[in-house]
Amino acid sequence: MADSELKVQLLLTGNEIMSGDTVDSNSALIAQRLGEVGIGVYRKVTVGDDVALLQTELAAMVATADLVIVNGGLGPTIDDLTAEILAATAGVSLQEHPQAVAHLQQWCNKRNLELNAANFKQAMLPAGASIVDNPVGSAVGFEMVLGDCRVICTPGVPSELIAMMGDIVDTLAARLQRPPGRNILRLQTFGLGESTAQQIISDNVTDWPQEVDLGFRAGAPQMEIKLTIDNAAATAAQQQCRKTLEQLFGDHIIGEGAVTLPQSVLQLLRQRGASLTTAESCTGGLIASMLTRIPGSSDSFHAGFVTYSNAIKQSVLGVSEKTLSEHGAVSEEVVREMAGGALKRSAADYTIAVSGIAGPGGGTADKPVGTVWLAWGDREHIRTRCLCWPVERSLFQTMIAASALDNVRRLLLGIDEEPRYFAQRGAR
Amino acid sequence: MADSELKVQLLLTGNEIMSGDTVDSNSALIAQRLGEVGIGVYRKVTVGDDVALLQTELAAMVATADLVIVNGGLGPTIDDLTAEILAATAGVSLQEHPQAVAHLQQWCNKRNLELNAANFKQAMLPAGASIVDNPVGSAVGFEMVLGDCRVICTPGVPSELIAMMGDIVDTLAARLQRPPGRNILRLQTFGLGESTAQQIISDNVTDWPQEVDLGFRAGAPQMEIKLTIDNAAATAAQQQCRKTLEQLFGDHIIGEGAVTLPQSVLQLLRQRGASLTTAESCTGGLIASMLTRIPGSSDSFHAGFVTYSNAIKQSVLGVSEKTLSEHGAVSEEVVREMAGGALKRSAADYTIAVSGIAGPGGGTADKPVGTVWLAWGDREHIRTRCLCWPVERSLFQTMIAASALDNVRRLLLGIDEEPRYFAQRGAR
Repeated sequence: MADSELKVQLLLTGNEIMSGDTVDSNSALIAQRLGEVGIGVYRKVTVGDDVALLQTELAAMVATADLVIVNGGLGPTIDDLTAEILAATAGVSLQEHPQAVAHLQQWCNKRNLELNAANFKQAMLPAGASIVDNPVGSAVGFEMVLGDCRVICTPGVPSELIAMMGDIVDTLAARLQRPPGRNILRLQTFGLGESTAQQIISDNVTDWPQEVDLGFRAGAPQMEIKLTIDNAAATAAQQQCRKTLEQLFGDHIIGEGAVTLPQSVLQLLRQRGASLTTAESCTGGLIASMLTRIPGSSDSFHAGFVTYSNAIKQSVLGVSEKTLSEHGAVSEEVVREMAGGALKRSAADYTIAVSGIAGPGGGTADKPVGTVWLAWGDREHIRTRCLCWPVERSLFQTMIAASALDNVRRLLLGIDEEPRYFAQRGAR
Repeated sequence: MADSELKVQLLLTGNEIMSGDTVDSNSALIAQRLGEVGIGVYRKVTVGDDVALLQTELAAMVATADLVIVNGGLGPTIDDLTAEILAATAGVSLQEHPQAVAHLQQWCNKRNLELNAANFKQAMLPAGASIVDNPVGSAVGFEMVLGDCRVICTPGVPSELIAMMGDIVDTLAARLQRPPGRNILRLQTFGLGESTAQQIISDNVTDWPQEVDLGFRAGAPQMEIKLTIDNAAATAAQQQCRKTLEQLFGDHIIGEGAVTLPQSVLQLLRQRGASLTTAESCTGGLIASMLTRIPGSSDSFHAGFVTYSNAIKQSVLGVSEKTLSEHGAVSEEVVREMAGGALKRSAADYTIAVSGIAGPGGGTADKPVGTVWLAWGDREHIRTRCLCWPVERSLFQTMIAASALDNVRRLLLGIDEEPRYFAQRGAR
């Protein structure tokens, strides 16, 4: 967790956030920007646009926190209550603030708008409040100190909040005279679950340094491992933890930062001047789509085939009718011919082929829903493997597409060791 | 706004939410689902994975609310604290819950996984708690009544929460013996922006009935229009509003409920016993992937081609070298040959082809980033159109893939009128 010297709370207001019509991304933005200068938020409360509720929450926060950031309720309409609430909590009245009026006037002039009564409301601020400049919107932010607590009021419009946070964070950091100590090292992994990773670490590491906070962020398909330190003096310990994780998880670590599997594969292909093609049945174009979502993918990806039916597997990829009738579409033999066919049709250097049963229908006793054959390789050698991953259709497609990309990544890196998920999910 | 008889609070937990690494969309989901049965949330509090903080908040909530929904902290790792906190607040111990163990065992068996110690933690629940079934994840939910307050604990993984909310909401609604008065009619649209839709309604409707609440939920690619009534007596007014919207927006309305463009297209194809093929350049497999994400898509979608390079456009789809060199890959002529080639290679009845410049690189003065040619049609007639939609790469791909599907939908429905986005975004 971040530095806990400064006790920070957030108060979010808005009926649209309470009803769920709007997902609140502002509080994440505020927390991230504060986190970058080592200021952690330990509590946030969200309530609708209700005077009594807002006043109760703000009073409780001011009594316990060093810093409260209020977000929302600065607009021109009657349900924008923040200035009124802050004035009441501080026991002062609302006054027309000359700087806020000047800002409004300028904002309207620039847009050829006339300043109307509704807008004027935005210049009525608690007596004694000082302005926080809003470079993009009509409503200024404002702040005041109540007892031991500083309260900063910010606009709910995300673009205005973003424009304002830089100054707010800089001012806070300068006030705190904070050395830039906090640092998060992120490792991206594929093929590890949160509980497995936690278990492996618990089983193998008895002396994890206290100054390095270990965190997981499970996602589909990747899981992020975070090593957070609050102080530059812990950098060596952080690097040591990183080495420990690399020893424990080896090639399940894709890379550092925010790297994704398709990015990693495309980068490895580019380094080798090589290209990749895809032959997809049950993933239905998802592998191609994951690759082509990345800018510059056209350097290494030129052709993808979605061959859903048996007839198309034959006519487009040259899979033989005999193979299909003898082994069925979800088989090692078919996926091998699909991989080879895609190489032939595309002139690519590397290939991925996938055929499986995504469900919910189509499963049999022999090949239940979740069964999938993967093939990957180059012109010399095509590898194959069967997995069984019986989860909901769209998650199945995501995990299988990622597994296919992960195997190409391993091939390009010359990793011989099998990933854990083959042992766990391997069907034969 | 929702019915306020029942006082509901949410307690969200997770360091990743506090730090801003994850944007909390769960609380919006919970509020929305509760709102649909007339239950409003009036306060939510978010804290990190900290025993003391969680306990303070939960105790305060239990003392003032009728219902508390806790989200997060059910996982297998040491920072998952919800069961422990609830037990402490209730003054009971944690016990191995037989149903939770059985659920875990079954979950692992299905996936060929061995039950590990970390997983077992998820079956240790407060004594007296009852289980809330989790159809997709390893951690069950649980609930118990503390004094006058019911506490329901739900998982932080969004897919698991979604799978669980249906039952929770149904049970709550049944317990409240709420008359089924509240009703939300949802219309899915494509090609309309929120402000445009609002303007069209304001300009054309002067007598909108007060008992029908009009709401918008803008998404990519679709926008939802909601007509909410709180009382069954307003049903006729709701249906009248629906007719008004159908008159105003016509064929920009895809359908009712949660229908998506690929679902609508697949259903229309199935009704006609027809099939569709795709030839994608800049959308890179996204159209195929959107279609094949839908269960049963194999009935009407058998073949898709991702032809990113010129060479592949020639070899796989039979686009002529002359057309490519004379007109360039992003041209009416090329996209028309791509569409025809895909029909020929696949024996499908309908075809979609897309070629454009997704960016950020590759734009020219003549064909800036965001320029795209679409072709769609059948063996009789292929239609073409150029759009310019200069937004971020992945949003561009999403909107263009949806536009392509929307045009097939219009063709299948025999709609001759052009969609609004051609007038707004049409490049020539």
